[in-house]
Amino acid sequence: MKKIAVILTQDYEDSEASDPIERLKKEGMDVTILAPEKGETYSGKQGEFEIEADLSIQEADPENFDALLIPGGHSPESLRLEKGAVAFVEHFVQRSKPIAAICHGPQLLISANGVEGRRMTSFESIRIDLKNAGAKVLDEEVVVDCNIVTSRTPDDIPAFNDMMIEVFQREPALT
Amino acid sequence: MKKIAVILTQDYEDSEASDPIERLKKEGMDVTILAPEKGETYSGKQGEFEIEADLSIQEADPENFDALLIPGGHSPESLRLEKGAVAFVEHFVQRSKPIAAICHGPQLLISANGVEGRRMTSFESIRIDLKNAGAKVLDEEVVVDCNIVTSRTPDDIPAFNDMMIEVFQREPALT
Repeated sequence: MKKIAVILTQDYEDSEASDPIERLKKEGMDVTILAPEKGETYSGKQGEFEIEADLSIQEADPENFDALLIPGGHSPESLRLEKGAVAFVEHFVQRSKPIAAICHGPQLLISANGVEGRRMTSFESIRIDLKNAGAKVLDEEVVVDCNIVTSRTPDDIPAFNDMMIEVFQREPALT
Repeated sequence: MKKIAVILTQDYEDSEASDPIERLKKEGMDVTILAPEKGETYSGKQGEFEIEADLSIQEADPENFDALLIPGGHSPESLRLEKGAVAFVEHFVQRSKPIAAICHGPQLLISANGVEGRRMTSFESIRIDLKNAGAKVLDEEVVVDCNIVTSRTPDDIPAFNDMMIEVFQREPALT
């Protein structure tokens, strides 16, 4: 059973958390919600979804997870300031473990030095930041480059979810 | 009388618009609010300040202004997507006209190719994007580099306002 970490804080984009999480569970994956405070409730910026944190980011050991989901909204930029969040993401980057990031999710990958030379997409307003960080930026509903899956907006969720599941289900690379 | 353009859209950081605008007017400067729609009311993200747009960004001619103020909050990232906003800012960059940008304001300067080689500061969460765009990033309450004045957060507003006024009052450089 694949163990999936979802990293978020307040004001994520509601459907970019709720829909992929629902899909991961439907596929039988073991989903853990990581946020700054264990047991606290985190709300989407549209006020349409809320979820309790299973673990604090500080306490979580990235070795215990097979893959990482980063929902968008204002959450990824806030997590750049959260002690331990960038280090948690760096683990997945450095081990080439699967990462799915949508909308503003790639902001956290920039901070984790995970985008240079990668084919990626994101919400339009931060594509210049991805490009300046060395990514090859595309305007497509879903882009996959080795272990990294990215999409642009909530409209892309169906394609994002399909590709996320495909990449998360792969056998681990021999390293 | 110096003519100052303030460029913003919904969800700017309230005090980063209200306080500098009040100071500019107190110093006898002629302030024009530019936003996507002329006559529409724009609210800060804290719900503590709102202001009507004097001109639409599309209709505005940057030649008519001596200096530019960019408040922070979510507004600068949204303006990256607004037709004409990036071109309007580029005019000030290319002519070395004075620009004051606080918090997330420098996001718009990244899009206008205005940060490479410049000493600057910003809200902490976007400093990596400034660095990747070639800026020399400092953690100080106000940083001035030639025509560009930047600050970090609402706490820096007193120092930001003082330096903004000093730079905006300079005689234009001979070009």
